[in-house]
Amino acid sequence: MHLLSNVRIAEQDADTGQYGLSAATAILLEDDRISWIGDPAELPERYAHAEREDLAGRVVTPGLIDCHTHIVFGGDRAREFEMRLEGASYEEIARAGGGILSSVNATREADEAVLLKQALRRVDALLAEGVTTIEVKSGYGLDVESELKMLRVARLIEARREVSVRTTWLAAHALPPEYKDDRAGYLREVVIAGMKQGHDEDLIDAVDGFCEGIAFSRDEMAMVFDAAAELGLPVKLHAEQLSDLGGAAMAAEHGAISADHLEYLGADGIAAMAKSGTVAVLLPGAFYTLRETKLPPIQALREAGVPMALATDCNPGTSPLTSILLTMNMGATLFRMTPSECLAGVTTHAARALGLSDRGTIAVGQRADLAIWDIKDLAELSYRIGFNPLHARIVGGEFV
Amino acid sequence: MHLLSNVRIAEQDADTGQYGLSAATAILLEDDRISWIGDPAELPERYAHAEREDLAGRVVTPGLIDCHTHIVFGGDRAREFEMRLEGASYEEIARAGGGILSSVNATREADEAVLLKQALRRVDALLAEGVTTIEVKSGYGLDVESELKMLRVARLIEARREVSVRTTWLAAHALPPEYKDDRAGYLREVVIAGMKQGHDEDLIDAVDGFCEGIAFSRDEMAMVFDAAAELGLPVKLHAEQLSDLGGAAMAAEHGAISADHLEYLGADGIAAMAKSGTVAVLLPGAFYTLRETKLPPIQALREAGVPMALATDCNPGTSPLTSILLTMNMGATLFRMTPSECLAGVTTHAARALGLSDRGTIAVGQRADLAIWDIKDLAELSYRIGFNPLHARIVGGEFV
Ligand SMILES: [Zn+2]
Ligand SMILES: [Zn+2]
Repeated sequence: MHLLSNVRIAEQDADTGQYGLSAATAILLEDDRISWIGDPAELPERYAHAEREDLAGRVVTPGLIDCHTHIVFGGDRAREFEMRLEGASYEEIARAGGGILSSVNATREADEAVLLKQALRRVDALLAEGVTTIEVKSGYGLDVESELKMLRVARLIEARREVSVRTTWLAAHALPPEYKDDRAGYLREVVIAGMKQGHDEDLIDAVDGFCEGIAFSRDEMAMVFDAAAELGLPVKLHAEQLSDLGGAAMAAEHGAISADHLEYLGADGIAAMAKSGTVAVLLPGAFYTLRETKLPPIQALREAGVPMALATDCNPGTSPLTSILLTMNMGATLFRMTPSECLAGVTTHAARALGLSDRGTIAVGQRADLAIWDIKDLAELSYRIGFNPLHARIVGGEFV
Repeated sequence: MHLLSNVRIAEQDADTGQYGLSAATAILLEDDRISWIGDPAELPERYAHAEREDLAGRVVTPGLIDCHTHIVFGGDRAREFEMRLEGASYEEIARAGGGILSSVNATREADEAVLLKQALRRVDALLAEGVTTIEVKSGYGLDVESELKMLRVARLIEARREVSVRTTWLAAHALPPEYKDDRAGYLREVVIAGMKQGHDEDLIDAVDGFCEGIAFSRDEMAMVFDAAAELGLPVKLHAEQLSDLGGAAMAAEHGAISADHLEYLGADGIAAMAKSGTVAVLLPGAFYTLRETKLPPIQALREAGVPMALATDCNPGTSPLTSILLTMNMGATLFRMTPSECLAGVTTHAARALGLSDRGTIAVGQRADLAIWDIKDLAELSYRIGFNPLHARIVGGEFV
């Protein structure tokens, strides 16, 4: 049991959702829960023996949540990045073994130990910035065994680090070469059959897909979502990143917990998401890396009351980003989200994008996952670029 | 004396300037210099007793150099950042005490100890990424005493941390309110008189100015540079950031060691810089923060053989950036510089932008300022976003 005293808590105004800081107060952590918040002078007798930590007026936020990552993958794409900047064409890069298939080949070849070791370096960078929950997608295996291997590695991250991991089945990420003339076969034999197997092995917390001209159609993804529904698995979708295929609306109609990217999202999609309570997960790292110019419809999402989350999209091709604080800055700088929206985007709304109601806020009964910061103003978290003011991280009630 | 063995050295091809990695080799550090590089089997007898450090095939680059910062300043602009994103107008922000004058007021009010403490947090973020030399400008005091105070703090950074600091007199940064009707008076009484005083106190390594419609004209800066020349001080200039006033060409004619920003640099400026050997210091953090769309003329600079450096421009208003690695990524992602150019930009060319020939390369006789990295390929330093693979930093021949 810990009593964190002399802390200022990031509190959301009930009406506006705007964050502010409480006066100095105390938080009681009991087992893995927050069990009391208030003036230490009024601490109930039963908590009197709690270990006290005076935090000297530091700021406490919920532990940060990275709700969209592809952080498990094999290989490296630094050389491809370099070739492109040196003027190589996509063809030349493909011939040199670059592109998503290079990640697929490297992921297929790597064993779990190698994948885990490489992923942990990236995970550690997130944890160093106050992250306490991470979502991890499959999607670089593209065969049943390799996809399941990725999610086994995701589960191992949770065993090896003080972090919660939520796994997402993303076999519908790309069509592998061996199925290039048999889309239906891939969906049936890998995406859906593998999903059932992964579900049996308790490897899958949600199901995702990449709905885009270069990947899978709305109808194909609807079929995958129907199969997920039969297993009782929640769904989410990479939608409207490069064009408007109506993916977000379809996902919303399937009760999706989130639709992600959304640069090309139109009014119909926004209305459908608002109606279904689907979270808009915005990924400024990919926007930045791809030098996109089409912004997601932030103001329309705001007006429609669609909750907006922010995530790193950490992946080797389009967002080799392992900083959640920089993601917040990009949300503000590139997407013009307010610092308050950016903070909600990596806490409350990120939890909701993962279907989790036990975290993302600081309240009695919530999981005791917290981040403690050497800052004076919450806006500092979004304002600074490449600066980490984390003082400590608390996971499941313990300093880690 | 240290013998770093089993290291791979970042080497520049003599013809192309392109970086590559050496085979595993050894580097001998004696006092604060590199005194031998080669196969350890051929180590001269006189070094036989050197302390050996097996670096297991890690990559060694020159210690990184941040050649353009405003890292000493008072106050904080996070709230201003937030107000702007919440839709406040520039007038409202000014009324709430925001803008550059808020930094000037806070810097004038703060004593050296406070300025130093705040600056060191930012400096530490740079050092954690392998930086071994930092340039620090004045420019938020705008009166003689406050400008000198800033540079005294800059000198104190060098005393308090394992880093070299180069100071730059930037009183010609903005016109303070008390001189708003007397530009000539400000230049005479503060910029030039203060420069002489700072020079007498050995506080000034170079002289800089902000040449822009909202700051000082080309002719005004030429007068300042003439005064600098009388003192034997090298000059550099913030030029062509928001418009083309011909500042870079004027600076080049004054033998400037660098011209910085340069988004609006034209052909004449490029030709003048090429002729004088003036380094182009590019500042992608400001470009990113201001959401600029006009790119500096990278290809033309390349073709003219103008050396390009990269720096954080760390400052509270337009680039609250304290990551040199992210600066490299921005150089690649936003400015389309190659990873090789990005590395030269924070080593060789950054040294040259500071007029330093004893660092920025790994060679016998150079200062033993090194960064050791857990990477396989130099391109990783530019490719990754928000990730720090530094293994160790060596300053003046010692691990720090
Ligand atoms: Zn994704
Ligand atoms: Zn500057």
